[in-house]
This record gives sequence, structure tokens and C-alpha cells, in this order.
Amino acid sequence: MSKNTFFTVGPSEMYFSVEMHMKEAFRKQIPSISHRGTAFQNLYRHAAGHLRELLQLPESYYVLFINSGTEAWERILQNCVEKKSCHLVNGAFSKRFAVTAQELGLETEVIETPDGQCIDPKNMLLSNDSELIALTYNETSTGAMQPVSDITSIRNGFQNTILAVDVVSAAPYINFNVQDVDCLFFSVQKGFGLPAGLGVLIVNEKCLSKAVKKQESGKSLGSYHSLPSLIEKAEKYETPATPNVLGIYLLGKVAEEMNLKGIDQIRKETDQKAAIIYQAIEDCSYLKPFVEKKACRSKTTIVAELHDPAEHKALMDYLSAQSMKVSTGYGKHKDKHIRIANFPALSKEQMERLADALVAFKKVEV
Amino acid sequence: MSKNTFFTVGPSEMYFSVEMHMKEAFRKQIPSISHRGTAFQNLYRHAAGHLRELLQLPESYYVLFINSGTEAWERILQNCVEKKSCHLVNGAFSKRFAVTAQELGLETEVIETPDGQCIDPKNMLLSNDSELIALTYNETSTGAMQPVSDITSIRNGFQNTILAVDVVSAAPYINFNVQDVDCLFFSVQKGFGLPAGLGVLIVNEKCLSKAVKKQESGKSLGSYHSLPSLIEKAEKYETPATPNVLGIYLLGKVAEEMNLKGIDQIRKETDQKAAIIYQAIEDCSYLKPFVEKKACRSKTTIVAELHDPAEHKALMDYLSAQSMKVSTGYGKHKDKHIRIANFPALSKEQMERLADALVAFKKVEV
Repeated sequence: MSKNTFFTVGPSEMYFSVEMHMKEAFRKQIPSISHRGTAFQNLYRHAAGHLRELLQLPESYYVLFINSGTEAWERILQNCVEKKSCHLVNGAFSKRFAVTAQELGLETEVIETPDGQCIDPKNMLLSNDSELIALTYNETSTGAMQPVSDITSIRNGFQNTILAVDVVSAAPYINFNVQDVDCLFFSVQKGFGLPAGLGVLIVNEKCLSKAVKKQESGKSLGSYHSLPSLIEKAEKYETPATPNVLGIYLLGKVAEEMNLKGIDQIRKETDQKAAIIYQAIEDCSYLKPFVEKKACRSKTTIVAELHDPAEHKALMDYLSAQSMKVSTGYGKHKDKHIRIANFPALSKEQMERLADALVAFKKVEV
Repeated sequence: MSKNTFFTVGPSEMYFSVEMHMKEAFRKQIPSISHRGTAFQNLYRHAAGHLRELLQLPESYYVLFINSGTEAWERILQNCVEKKSCHLVNGAFSKRFAVTAQELGLETEVIETPDGQCIDPKNMLLSNDSELIALTYNETSTGAMQPVSDITSIRNGFQNTILAVDVVSAAPYINFNVQDVDCLFFSVQKGFGLPAGLGVLIVNEKCLSKAVKKQESGKSLGSYHSLPSLIEKAEKYETPATPNVLGIYLLGKVAEEMNLKGIDQIRKETDQKAAIIYQAIEDCSYLKPFVEKKACRSKTTIVAELHDPAEHKALMDYLSAQSMKVSTGYGKHKDKHIRIANFPALSKEQMERLADALVAFKKVEV
């Protein structure tokens, strides 16, 4: 059986060195070490340090390990909002961020834009009592990526509001200035090419202060994964519960290797590989980019729409037969779209092979 | 560097086949498969099925995958208690279960017994409004294991109350009748000898009904990991968020192997190995079992007290020098106790080697 290449948007292709690091972890008995000892503290310090370098995080931001991007939605809202949060919704995942707030009993202010578009910050009017703005930098369900200048505009427009940014399927490719946001989070099975089961939540002092204030007013922040609890442990490179130790070890190793390459080079390669795929989509008469506005097209999760949904199954089967796995569309777009990951684990050669296959599927009918 | 044997109470020694299954998982590209596809559903079905057999669970109980035993405390209380829970506290972990309830804003009724003892159900009086009884079957901090007959007594005494039992450091060794309890949970880095980062939460219909009732009264159950949300996905062998796919795969493999051996044989071996260690402790003039009452002594996490805490460091160093890692005492007992795991991953030969070393540390001074 030949190996598949996973262009799926997460879980996705493993970063080239993960299997080797996993073997090494077992050789070093990492899965058996105590989460309350020096060896674990060193793993945490190593992983957090390399993430800090890779994502260009200021020292004042806390790097916290949780279990998934989905958990991040819950913890941020539970800790940083007392009454009302504002959600910029342009797809299924930004919508779930808003639904999470509603499930937690919060009021939500939803600013919605059709799938495939980005929110225009010029039209943003926020009620006075929204304590947090939830923005999805890269909407995995549609392939829309918010332009960097918009994040700066939102920051400038709402300086006192907590700005929480979902970078689940974008990290480590983040083009915006991290200092413009108060909170960001991702899971490792996407851009980091790691096995699922670990999330990273990054917050600044403003988020912590808000949580402490909420707690002091007698409201619950949840329990073991409240921000004060996570941060108290993080200060000594520990976690409140036994974490995914192996996941943190692997993340540290991969982040270290990414730093050897350098984030600028990773961004450059990501842009080049994205250009190859978007060009292929343009060259295919049966496909078009789902996101019309070029400035909003994601570099990391590329979504193409089929002119004729009847061809969807044939295209998926055709790629599968060549050991290439891409994601279907999400939700209502399931049989109309294909979604292609462009994460650091996927090489230029692999993206070119996919691009060639897409073009060869059905010759341009002029 | 010689390999250590981890007699630590969790994370602990890996089950003998875990490294092999991990290699196989990478060969089969398990870390890259989608959590929304048939391959993952088959993993879930396989793992849940083997857990069902191993733990002798009725078909009507739901097997849910979460992230840790700590998370289980939060989710159970968040979903199954509206106002008040009752906690049987006899050590640090049963206490944290109660503290979790308080952090979630619930009232708690605490029935406390000194460390090293078990709650006597004969003395249990419960106020009418406690909706859930939280019992820690095996208190990892002290090495006290609740006698099976007590669980039956509590069940008979409080038939309408939800009985939630923490079996974190006991599973798969569970001697009680699972049908006597409504909810049980554990994490995989203890008795299953797996890498940390996965928890298993098992609930019956009574827990689900209670959660639905709480939700209908307008109260929040949390978000993605509420019981209705977990169970809705579990019905089709999926999870609400991307789970620790690799952890579920490994758990299924190890549970399958444990079933080949059979739970009766695992219990028998556990009892035999426990007898070896308790005998060694009796044979050591410098040690005594911390739990006085024999019927309350844990079979899976054995705690010994040093007559002279000044010898603690020397004992730990002496065992370390022979590549044997045991846990220190917990909390206030840190330098007075050693805690020894007796999980299925540890062979009779390994337990005998530890027993011999304990006896040889300091000859009996008669």
C-alpha cells in the first residue's frame, strides 16, 4: 500500500521529523516521566520558548497548553466575558465560537458576512457592553483569511475590548502583529503537522486581569483550566492536570526545527506554494477559487468550488487513486468544494504534484 | 543509559506493546486520518467495544472520550448537578473533586475521613438535596481503596442519587459491579500504561437525563463537552472536537490485549503482585503500610510510610540508582511516604525486584 499524502485541513500530513521524534521520545521514556518533575518542566520551557520565537510573542504573553482549539473557545469566553461577547462570523467555525458563548449563557452580538468573504472593519459598530471581540483569522470552512490591515484597524478601533483571534488553521503562518491581539489559539494537528490532542492558548495580562475581576465578582471561571489556574502552573512550567506530555515534547521539537528554517522563510514558502495551487485552480475550467476577493484568500487552507457538483465524487476518487487526500467542502458546501491544506509539512514538490493532478483531471474546454 | 522501570503512580510504565503499536500507527498514517471519517469511527468503535468487555459494562452505558480524569470531575458536576453535590473525601484527589464543585459555584456536602482511611457508609447521612455522590474508589494520594461491599451499600442506601466513582488509578482493576454506579472515569496513563492526554468518561442514561433536565431549566452544561453533545457524537462513534486520535487507537489496542488475557487473570495477577509488595513492606523495619486497615489497602497504588522521614531521600536515591522510579508521598506526606504503582504494565518479576530492593535497603534491626 503506497503512502497517502494528506492535503486535508486537519488532521493533516505529519511534519517530516515527527515519526523520528516519536521514536526518540520512547527511547528516552518521555511517556513515563512525571508531569510534576524537572524533566517535564524542561519540556514545557523548551516548547513554550520555541513557540515564543516562532510566533514572535512578547515575553509578557503566557503560553498555555490545553487540549484543542475547541476547548480554547470555551475557556476564553468562560474567563474573559461576564455578560456579552461580539463575534465576527463568516463561516462554520467562527459561528461555533459564537454558539459556544450562547451555550455558556452569554449574550452575543454577531456581525455576520456571507461565507467566502471577510468582515469589513469599516462597517463595524460595537455596542458598549461587548467585552470581547472574537475574530477567526482563517476560516477553515471557507478558505477566507482576514487581511492583516483589518486586524490593525479593529485593534485601533476597540482598544479596551479584548481581541481574541482564532488562528487554528493558520499558525505558525501569522502575518499580523501578535501585539495587536490579546489572545490567540490553535491546535497542533494543522499547521504544525502533529498528531491531534493538544491545543495552545496564548493570552496577555489583559485577559488574566479580566478573569480575576470576573472571579472576584463571584462568578465561576470553570475549574482546573481557568486562566488563573493555568497561569499559576505555567509560571513554573507545569499544567493543572496531567497534560499530553508527548504532544508537548513533539511540539517543542517541531517548533525548534521551524525556527532553524525561520518564520520568514516558512511564510515565503507558504506564499509560493499557495500561488501554485491558486494558479492550478485558475487553470482548471471546472474549478474556481471559492473566495472571490484575492486579498481574502487563505494561504494555508485553499478552497476551490466546482462549477458542476456532479463532478465532485469523481474528482475526490481520482485524487485518492493517486494517493492524494484533500478535504471535502464543509457543511452545506460538502459536495461543492474541495479544501486543500498548505501547511509547512507539505513540500513544494507535493503541492506541484497536486496542482498537476488537478489540471490533468479535466482538460480546459475552450 | 539503562532503562528505568517506572513504578510511579501515573504517568507510569508503558504497557509492553505500546511502542510497537505506536510504530504501526505511523506506518498506517493514523495521526493524519480525519476525525470525521470511517477510519476514525472504526477506531472509536474498536476501543469502546474492548473497554466495554474489559470493564464489563452494560450496553446501555455510554463510553465517552475526553482529555483527562481532571476534566471528568468538571464535566460530571457541570452536567449532573444543579445545586448540590456530596463528596466522600479521604485524601487530596477526592478533595479536589469537591473543590471543583465549589469552583463551579455548586454547594457541597463533604463527608471527610482522615487520610489513609475509607469512608464508613454506615455513618453516611445525606441531606435531601444532594443530587450526586462523588466517591473516589482508589485515593492515589494515600493508597486507600474503598471496599467493594461499601459501594453496594451506598448504592442501596441512595438509589435515586447519581453515584459517580473516580477509578482513575484503579481501572481496569475494578472489583465492584459497574451497574452499581451511574458514572465512572479514568485517564489512560495509569492502569492502561499509555501516554497521558486521554480520559474516559462512562455514564448511564440517568446521568444524561439529569443533564437534559438541567439544560431544559435554562442552565448551562458547558459547551462542546456537555453530556448531550458528547453522547450525540458518540452515537455515531465521533467526538465533538478533534480528539487525541492516536491515544484512542493505542487504548483500543491495549484493551484488546488485556481482553486476550482476561480481566479475571489481570485482577488475580494484580492481587498477587500487591501481596508481594505489602509483604516486603512488612519485612522492612523502616517501613509500614500507610493504610492500617487491610481491607482498605489499595491493590493498584501501594503507599508505605517511613518510620524516619530522614531516610526518605536515601531510599529514593537508592532505588533510582537501580533504575527503579517510585513516587514520593503526596502533598503533606511528600517526604514521609513512597507510593508504588502496581499496574498491569508491571510484571511479577519487576515487582519482585522492587520488593527485594526494598528489603535489602536496610536490614531488619531486631
